[in-house]
Amino acid sequence: MGDGRTARIAALRRALATHEIDALLVTSIPNIRYLTGFSGSSAMVVVSMHEVVLLTDFRYQTQVTFEVGAAARTIIELQSLWTRLWSVLPELTGTERIGFESSHVVHRDFQRIMEGGTRWQWRPTSDLIESLRERKDADELARIRRAADIACGALHEIIPRVRPGMTELAVAGMLEHALRDGGSEGFPFETIVAAGPRSALPHARASGNTIAAGDFLLIDFGAEHAGYCSDITRTFVVGRATPEQRVAYDIVREAQAVAVGGLTVGMSGKDADALARSYIERSGWGEAFGHSLGHGIGLEVHEGPRLSRLAEAPLPAGAVVTVEPGVYRAGWGGVRIEDDVLVGDAGPELLTHFPRELKEIG
Amino acid sequence: MGDGRTARIAALRRALATHEIDALLVTSIPNIRYLTGFSGSSAMVVVSMHEVVLLTDFRYQTQVTFEVGAAARTIIELQSLWTRLWSVLPELTGTERIGFESSHVVHRDFQRIMEGGTRWQWRPTSDLIESLRERKDADELARIRRAADIACGALHEIIPRVRPGMTELAVAGMLEHALRDGGSEGFPFETIVAAGPRSALPHARASGNTIAAGDFLLIDFGAEHAGYCSDITRTFVVGRATPEQRVAYDIVREAQAVAVGGLTVGMSGKDADALARSYIERSGWGEAFGHSLGHGIGLEVHEGPRLSRLAEAPLPAGAVVTVEPGVYRAGWGGVRIEDDVLVGDAGPELLTHFPRELKEIG
Repeated sequence: MGDGRTARIAALRRALATHEIDALLVTSIPNIRYLTGFSGSSAMVVVSMHEVVLLTDFRYQTQVTFEVGAAARTIIELQSLWTRLWSVLPELTGTERIGFESSHVVHRDFQRIMEGGTRWQWRPTSDLIESLRERKDADELARIRRAADIACGALHEIIPRVRPGMTELAVAGMLEHALRDGGSEGFPFETIVAAGPRSALPHARASGNTIAAGDFLLIDFGAEHAGYCSDITRTFVVGRATPEQRVAYDIVREAQAVAVGGLTVGMSGKDADALARSYIERSGWGEAFGHSLGHGIGLEVHEGPRLSRLAEAPLPAGAVVTVEPGVYRAGWGGVRIEDDVLVGDAGPELLTHFPRELKEIG
Repeated sequence: MGDGRTARIAALRRALATHEIDALLVTSIPNIRYLTGFSGSSAMVVVSMHEVVLLTDFRYQTQVTFEVGAAARTIIELQSLWTRLWSVLPELTGTERIGFESSHVVHRDFQRIMEGGTRWQWRPTSDLIESLRERKDADELARIRRAADIACGALHEIIPRVRPGMTELAVAGMLEHALRDGGSEGFPFETIVAAGPRSALPHARASGNTIAAGDFLLIDFGAEHAGYCSDITRTFVVGRATPEQRVAYDIVREAQAVAVGGLTVGMSGKDADALARSYIERSGWGEAFGHSLGHGIGLEVHEGPRLSRLAEAPLPAGAVVTVEPGVYRAGWGGVRIEDDVLVGDAGPELLTHFPRELKEIG
């Protein structure tokens, strides 16, 4: 985690002061990784004004030491992290008002807090760490660039091998294998490979369906490097594209180019969304673009800022977002083109380098 | 989903009656799939005594129709599912007391319920659907068997190709590719490939580390078929095993065999755990087995029943559980052997068929 970690803890403490709380109980796993470097799936962190304490279980005993180092005091608990928390909190002097993450504490755990934590005042908080995460530092950006390169390299490698008659699952298998060989630590989300009418399902997974000549082939996937994600979509035509397929493709490609080129620091997510949406609406396909334009990526594949009709917040400098307009017609097919873009002070910068021209394959 | 669905809804309604509630708001995605067959990632379901209503968003418009059919009345909502819920609930006559899933509603959504749902009485519930899910029906069992076969077939295929000098990631890539070619819809959890000292990390992921002669090579992974998971672990030795490696391996293999053979309907999860644990303790390696013996598998890779030192509940007939003892020594390595086992009235039945003898590979 470089040592961005020191700066992150300092920024969080400033946010705590602004919100008049003395400490934050962090239960979101990506937020814990952001603050401490710990990549395990079971942990709790308390950040007070003077200390950072991480609680995890037996399974991570070895891992936590080398990942976290001096970034937190670590405690290995064999039974219940919650029970242990009640004995750790009294050690944190000057801690009266404690925030918890309202979107990352389930009702059952909220009840535990109300029952076991009566000694403190508890305050629900929203997005304290998530908003810090929207601005990527140089180290984070380097990791995303690498994840983007791995994804594009894998796609370049497998596209020449795709043939009609293969199943979507077989294409996913080749692609994921190439991602692993390129060094991807994991798959940030389930690989989508959708051919023909299934390309009209914005969240299809790969299936046993066979790819046929004439199909759109939509591939949406990502890579992971040092905890950070990429997320890219390309839509191909198997064999020769029909005029109707070209029309749909060109509208999406142009809408995507307009949106990527128009992203500026300080613009609202809503205005960013409108860049592509108004182009698609003017082309007469507005009804066919039902989802949002994009989302931030980083430690999670969906994070802030959002680019959608409802997003009022301005895009901060250093945000990395997907730009992914699409059009879909049930029973016929769909086209989506998605890239990862840095919203920089010097203008938008594409991080995913893979051609956007309509490509006939197979 | 066959039509287990009708029986499942009926069983849930009996549970609601027992708990004196008129309806349940279901927000857990696997629970929604269990009841309705819907496999999307964004939905809410309300089960009242007379109706089943499913709310989802635009992206799933086409998918929801063919997956859910007559199992629920489906509503496509373009904005907020929560807002729509407040207009749907008044249509469900006779609904006063509504349960919500305490482990699947975050505090923020609990606040929405408290603010938007003042017209109803809300009751936290735990595991109403999860306990139904513990007993697999014939259709579910057939899906798990297939997922187990896919996993074992993939492992058989790639083990002869593993060589010293390969990275853990390369092995994961081959294995995942073979899983896809075998028809796996996805990866129920991140593939673990851990060589040498990394095999001592019970939750290591695959890394760029190179496999060397003399290493333990621990591989823990699963397949998915029609929504259902398998989960298997084997530990190999690269090259010739040392006497010390054989000792550790044999203890785990024997402990696992004892535990698999001893599983009976009605036994507590704690007594099941003790079958393996007491064997390992008697062998002098008790300290090296820090995790639980196993867990249920089904729509999720970790579900009930649990086999652990704290699990008092009896194993129901039809449960499918993992049996996965392991021993780990930091800096040296670890061994884990895991199979999926049906706890049947006629005795335990192994669902994963892959040899358990120590195998020297590479």
